[in-house]
Amino acid sequence: MTEVRSPRPRADPEALIASARAGNARAVGRLISLVENRSPELRPVMKAIAPYTGTARVIGITGSPGVGKSTVTSALAAAYRAAGMRIGVLAVDPSSPFTGGALLGDRVRMQDHATDDGVFIRSMASRGHLGGLSLATPQAVRILDAAGFGLILIETVGVGQAELEIASLADSTLVVVAPGMGDSVQAAKAGILEIADILVVNKSDRPAAQQAVRDLRTMVAMGNWEGGWKPPIVSTVAVAGTGIDDLTEKIGAHWSWLASSAELARRRRARAREEVAAIAVAVLRGRLGGLPGDSRLDELAGRVAAGQLDPYSAADELVSG
Amino acid sequence: MTEVRSPRPRADPEALIASARAGNARAVGRLISLVENRSPELRPVMKAIAPYTGTARVIGITGSPGVGKSTVTSALAAAYRAAGMRIGVLAVDPSSPFTGGALLGDRVRMQDHATDDGVFIRSMASRGHLGGLSLATPQAVRILDAAGFGLILIETVGVGQAELEIASLADSTLVVVAPGMGDSVQAAKAGILEIADILVVNKSDRPAAQQAVRDLRTMVAMGNWEGGWKPPIVSTVAVAGTGIDDLTEKIGAHWSWLASSAELARRRRARAREEVAAIAVAVLRGRLGGLPGDSRLDELAGRVAAGQLDPYSAADELVSG
Repeated sequence: MTEVRSPRPRADPEALIASARAGNARAVGRLISLVENRSPELRPVMKAIAPYTGTARVIGITGSPGVGKSTVTSALAAAYRAAGMRIGVLAVDPSSPFTGGALLGDRVRMQDHATDDGVFIRSMASRGHLGGLSLATPQAVRILDAAGFGLILIETVGVGQAELEIASLADSTLVVVAPGMGDSVQAAKAGILEIADILVVNKSDRPAAQQAVRDLRTMVAMGNWEGGWKPPIVSTVAVAGTGIDDLTEKIGAHWSWLASSAELARRRRARAREEVAAIAVAVLRGRLGGLPGDSRLDELAGRVAAGQLDPYSAADELVSG
Repeated sequence: MTEVRSPRPRADPEALIASARAGNARAVGRLISLVENRSPELRPVMKAIAPYTGTARVIGITGSPGVGKSTVTSALAAAYRAAGMRIGVLAVDPSSPFTGGALLGDRVRMQDHATDDGVFIRSMASRGHLGGLSLATPQAVRILDAAGFGLILIETVGVGQAELEIASLADSTLVVVAPGMGDSVQAAKAGILEIADILVVNKSDRPAAQQAVRDLRTMVAMGNWEGGWKPPIVSTVAVAGTGIDDLTEKIGAHWSWLASSAELARRRRARAREEVAAIAVAVLRGRLGGLPGDSRLDELAGRVAAGQLDPYSAADELVSG
């Protein structure tokens, strides 16, 4: 029998891993697709790559829509690439019915790096699933790490929960704000200060930039930085490349602090802890669904919605099978 | 033996429920504290109130920091209160180390209603816990519903995951934007259009307001509104009360549409489904932690962080005990 060539041959995990580690971007992309598709092949892949993980530095970039996160991410990727590093970029977007995922604007901006094998860019849709980001992103990070990308940038949209999650994934978390996007009270309200390792005031050529820096400085001064690292405030105009040198310097300083304190090991253990717990819960939820079937949950939910049953009793019934 | 009076007597669930249903705001507050403290007394409370639930209308109000959600919420509360309804307001804030929860600004704005027994206001900290909002908020809604608040407003900060969660909690979801806070591409990027039942352009006295409305209109026109409801766009200046009548009218129209279609029942079943599943997962997670103890997860996480073990095998070990 002759083997027929197909445009998408079935993935052989071992061959894919070897190819990805040899620098093949397509193989890296296919491994990450296994994550997105929650493929059963993911288990052997994760097992095989475990020994190759743990060397990459992970930088999270977050902030409200419109502050210029993609531009900051792209400028950082360019700067680190110029320094000879291999860069992985994960853009975690809530998917939209209008775009089906990443938006054209980001794609265009990211095009700067499109033909460079030393920069791997992937847009991942979080699709609004609770825990979607916390499950898929660390696994994609794991793959990029094992494939030899020394620096991984994770850009995520949103404040609140998604943002707090990114902080638990990254070694260093950059929170990007823009002048005039809301006053300092709003910044505190978004809960961003407590997760920032570095605060970036982007679009700092705007008139309100000095005020934004002052407000952030006051709030940082009010904070309690027991761990020993007080977030510096960096002003950038990422679209023009202004301030990116200062930013990479501060990121370097944060990395040095992490590595010289117990904090790096602590963060990475905490990250692994979250990841293992998330997988364990997914396994357990799978068992829930696999009991008398999802129809059981539907039936219980209907009784709860009708006020015939309280949600705790329903959960107990569900868990006990 | 004589019973000694204490400033915080131990809660008697039955008495608390009766008192809450009779209109005692303090009793309502203490029941909601049981939710926040994850008290074991919550179970009997939820069981006892189940028959009284299902009548309240739940309106979610979300959007980026700085758009004026609190002001819109307060204006809506005032409008519905003037119409004789009893209103419950839950403000879900990511807690910040700088404030310990709700911010003074919101408190001050909400003061308008502070002395009115027909308006119950509670600030809940989501504290960044994954699933925190999805667990606690529906239970607080349940308590307000059983206590006879006919309309419940849930205000939440943030786009992305938290925002998507609010949509699953509410009968009607209002997404508030402000002119100049980001262009339409950013609005789509935040994934807000797919969850909005009504789009509110607040601060519409700003120069960019017309452009914001046009952008949203274009994007709504591009959407696929198979369910039969196409989100209207309402312009408000909530701080001056402008446009609030129009907004309550659109909320009424959405409610009529929900009630006359199968959508209301569908949403409420889906809400109960999420709630039951979240409790079931919490129960299962509790069992995980209760196995050989959290130290087991720590030990496994340490091996994963060191690259000695993959996270799937670690999760399997954890789940199998």
